[in-house]
Amino acid sequence: MRTDATIVAPATPRGESGLAVIRLSGDRAESILRRIFRPARPLDSFESHRLYYGHAVDGSEVVDEVMAVLMRAPKTFTREDVAEIHCHGGPLPVSRIVALCLRQGAVMARPGEFTLRAFLNGRLDLAQAEAVAGIIHARSEAAGRAALGQLEGRLSSRLRVLKKDLVELLAHLETHIDFVEEDIDLPDQDKWCERVAAVRRQVEEIAATYTSGRMLKDGVRVLILGKPNVGKSSLLNCMLGESRAIVSEWAGTTRDTIEENLVLNGFPLRLIDTAGIRQTEDPVEKEGVERARQKIRSADLVLFLVDGSRPIDDDDRLVFDFCPSERTLLVVNKIDLQQSPLPSWLSGLPRVSIGARDHIGIDRLGDALCRLLGDDRGDAGESLLVYESRHYQALLHCSQALDRLLQSLEQGESPEFLAVDLQDALRSLGEITGETTPDDVLDTIFSQFCIGK
Amino acid sequence: MRTDATIVAPATPRGESGLAVIRLSGDRAESILRRIFRPARPLDSFESHRLYYGHAVDGSEVVDEVMAVLMRAPKTFTREDVAEIHCHGGPLPVSRIVALCLRQGAVMARPGEFTLRAFLNGRLDLAQAEAVAGIIHARSEAAGRAALGQLEGRLSSRLRVLKKDLVELLAHLETHIDFVEEDIDLPDQDKWCERVAAVRRQVEEIAATYTSGRMLKDGVRVLILGKPNVGKSSLLNCMLGESRAIVSEWAGTTRDTIEENLVLNGFPLRLIDTAGIRQTEDPVEKEGVERARQKIRSADLVLFLVDGSRPIDDDDRLVFDFCPSERTLLVVNKIDLQQSPLPSWLSGLPRVSIGARDHIGIDRLGDALCRLLGDDRGDAGESLLVYESRHYQALLHCSQALDRLLQSLEQGESPEFLAVDLQDALRSLGEITGETTPDDVLDTIFSQFCIGK
Repeated sequence: MRTDATIVAPATPRGESGLAVIRLSGDRAESILRRIFRPARPLDSFESHRLYYGHAVDGSEVVDEVMAVLMRAPKTFTREDVAEIHCHGGPLPVSRIVALCLRQGAVMARPGEFTLRAFLNGRLDLAQAEAVAGIIHARSEAAGRAALGQLEGRLSSRLRVLKKDLVELLAHLETHIDFVEEDIDLPDQDKWCERVAAVRRQVEEIAATYTSGRMLKDGVRVLILGKPNVGKSSLLNCMLGESRAIVSEWAGTTRDTIEENLVLNGFPLRLIDTAGIRQTEDPVEKEGVERARQKIRSADLVLFLVDGSRPIDDDDRLVFDFCPSERTLLVVNKIDLQQSPLPSWLSGLPRVSIGARDHIGIDRLGDALCRLLGDDRGDAGESLLVYESRHYQALLHCSQALDRLLQSLEQGESPEFLAVDLQDALRSLGEITGETTPDDVLDTIFSQFCIGK
Repeated sequence: MRTDATIVAPATPRGESGLAVIRLSGDRAESILRRIFRPARPLDSFESHRLYYGHAVDGSEVVDEVMAVLMRAPKTFTREDVAEIHCHGGPLPVSRIVALCLRQGAVMARPGEFTLRAFLNGRLDLAQAEAVAGIIHARSEAAGRAALGQLEGRLSSRLRVLKKDLVELLAHLETHIDFVEEDIDLPDQDKWCERVAAVRRQVEEIAATYTSGRMLKDGVRVLILGKPNVGKSSLLNCMLGESRAIVSEWAGTTRDTIEENLVLNGFPLRLIDTAGIRQTEDPVEKEGVERARQKIRSADLVLFLVDGSRPIDDDDRLVFDFCPSERTLLVVNKIDLQQSPLPSWLSGLPRVSIGARDHIGIDRLGDALCRLLGDDRGDAGESLLVYESRHYQALLHCSQALDRLLQSLEQGESPEFLAVDLQDALRSLGEITGETTPDDVLDTIFSQFCIGK
């Protein structure tokens, strides 16, 4: 990984706007800035972190009217000298100024290279660096909060405490490995068993937050299920109408399901409308039913929709049999009409009544849905949430290594033997924060960043 | 127009990137910034133009990790207090921080409102304000240079000199109006005729740059004309291939013409491929020929393409008859094959030989094209170019008023009579720089800006 070059890239999105920012980082940031920026009033030296008015120049030619700032290391994002040029927000001034920087010896930054340097220079650990991308790509406030918590070091500091415990045990073991000829028992074995079990329990607790974290990041998969003509599309449309979508809609119309993204009470949902389910011999319809059944497996929640104005029948029962009882909300539609009584086999499900066509009770539905998700949701504002699958995998790996360690401790295995599992557990935690992450994994992580970050 | 509110808007394009900037302008910029920004180290007062590291906060909740800067009036773009918050470049942090500002009493900026304030507070005149949009939307370096020249005041200062002359004459006239009973001749009448004629000549000179200015702004309309199968599409494709398009391509495929944008030697071109022209009785083809003929009228230049390997025939002659002789470049295609002699009636046209299929001679074609445009092109780096149709209209109006003034001067009309035309001429020039621009025109101009500019 190159770290001696001075890198340059636009830090703002391509487009037409009031302002664009071009960012330089590296030893030569100041000298390059001096060559392409002509301050309005002569300047002996740049005061760090101060914006100066002037012009970007190509020799004697003025390229744009700009503001420029030099931020001296180490108090910068990358801990290197960072210069920024704030020019008019058009593609042309941006590309010309970037070209000027390149001609003065800067090299084009690769995706994520500024954040990579912040990581390599110890400004951020790897989990914090990943959180930067999490904030940028967040699709809901809750997801943004989880990423911000990670950036602020919530995950890292929690892991630091756990690692400290394991490192102490490792030091303890290594002392004994050095004196292995004396063939003495590992002292405090019971105490260590307890401490390792406590660490493992905490690792598992942290890993368990991934269910909610993943939902926050990728959206909760909510499936609308029902027999034909109970109002599934009306429900989808009126939920979309009441929501405030932060990102543009998914183009997700497939042959038999429609997927839409929306944000409900700050929660990102991916709402999936399926084909109607009923007893059928028609091969095409049968295929649709089979696909709906497959969707159920990956759904976080099922909205089981029935028509409250008609008697519940065998087709409803068929849908019910598909529903995972612990993840299903019964939605009784058409409450504006005379209601039929519900059969007793439906009484076990949490229930909400709505009138989808007239947008009645959609707020109640939203509340019920959030209540059902509530336990998983946690309070992202306060608590720790793991939302990267990479972190989740590492936590699982750590927990398994600690399991093996506990068994070996109980069986009185040799310190050398114990040390192997302990080092494995530590390596897994270190992969999250970056101490033990292989270069190719780092490459993959940072290459998913945008240019200029 | 409201000027007492403190306005807020994102100054960078919507999208995912390293950085986004939210900008506030107005009296309350500092107090709003103080309420939503928590500096990393306690801060008695903001030093103007200095970037501070800290957090955007909603009460006690951290919304994002940010840099913030306060720029105190009058040394700011709007000449009001301006605050900027530099946050992570995601839609979510941007919308949350804008919402925080709104809750603290800022109002959402309308498109162009920052620049409007810069104009109303005398930081820029109207022509300079319009140049800001010109830079942002520029599609070629030459267009960018023309806009930058206008922002730097090239047009404004030139007009200022002309206006000074006219104002002097007006003062002179008004003295005489006050003493009109004395019924004396206007002194120095010949001298004034000369001075007015000189102003009119200069106004016309400036107006004449609009031909090139418009081409720079909107692209030079270059029409490819020829009978069928001489290689028009190959020519279009290889010119596109050799060009470096700064903006994405036009979606311009119509029933019978294809339009593509490209930049050639820093010059924006709009290349228009037409249906082949030949003698025909087919009604559909006839319609295509008629449309090509209409395109010729609005073309800045015609590339008349012939197949050099075959004898020039009546269909070529038909195309030739369509071509405007002073705006036509003869392009002889297929120079890789044995060449037929060209008839004498083609000898009057500037000519270039190419092999479109094998990309031979395209550089020569580019040079020839630029030479033909060269006279109009001027050197946008040095000279003045008018590229806004609004400015052009105002200059024409001014020139007409000066015409009338000259006639009246020669006919010895009364000072009151002279003053009317003079005031009309001055008002026209003032509309360009904004002194006499009606509010509804200002509204129209600034509403075409982007939000946050």
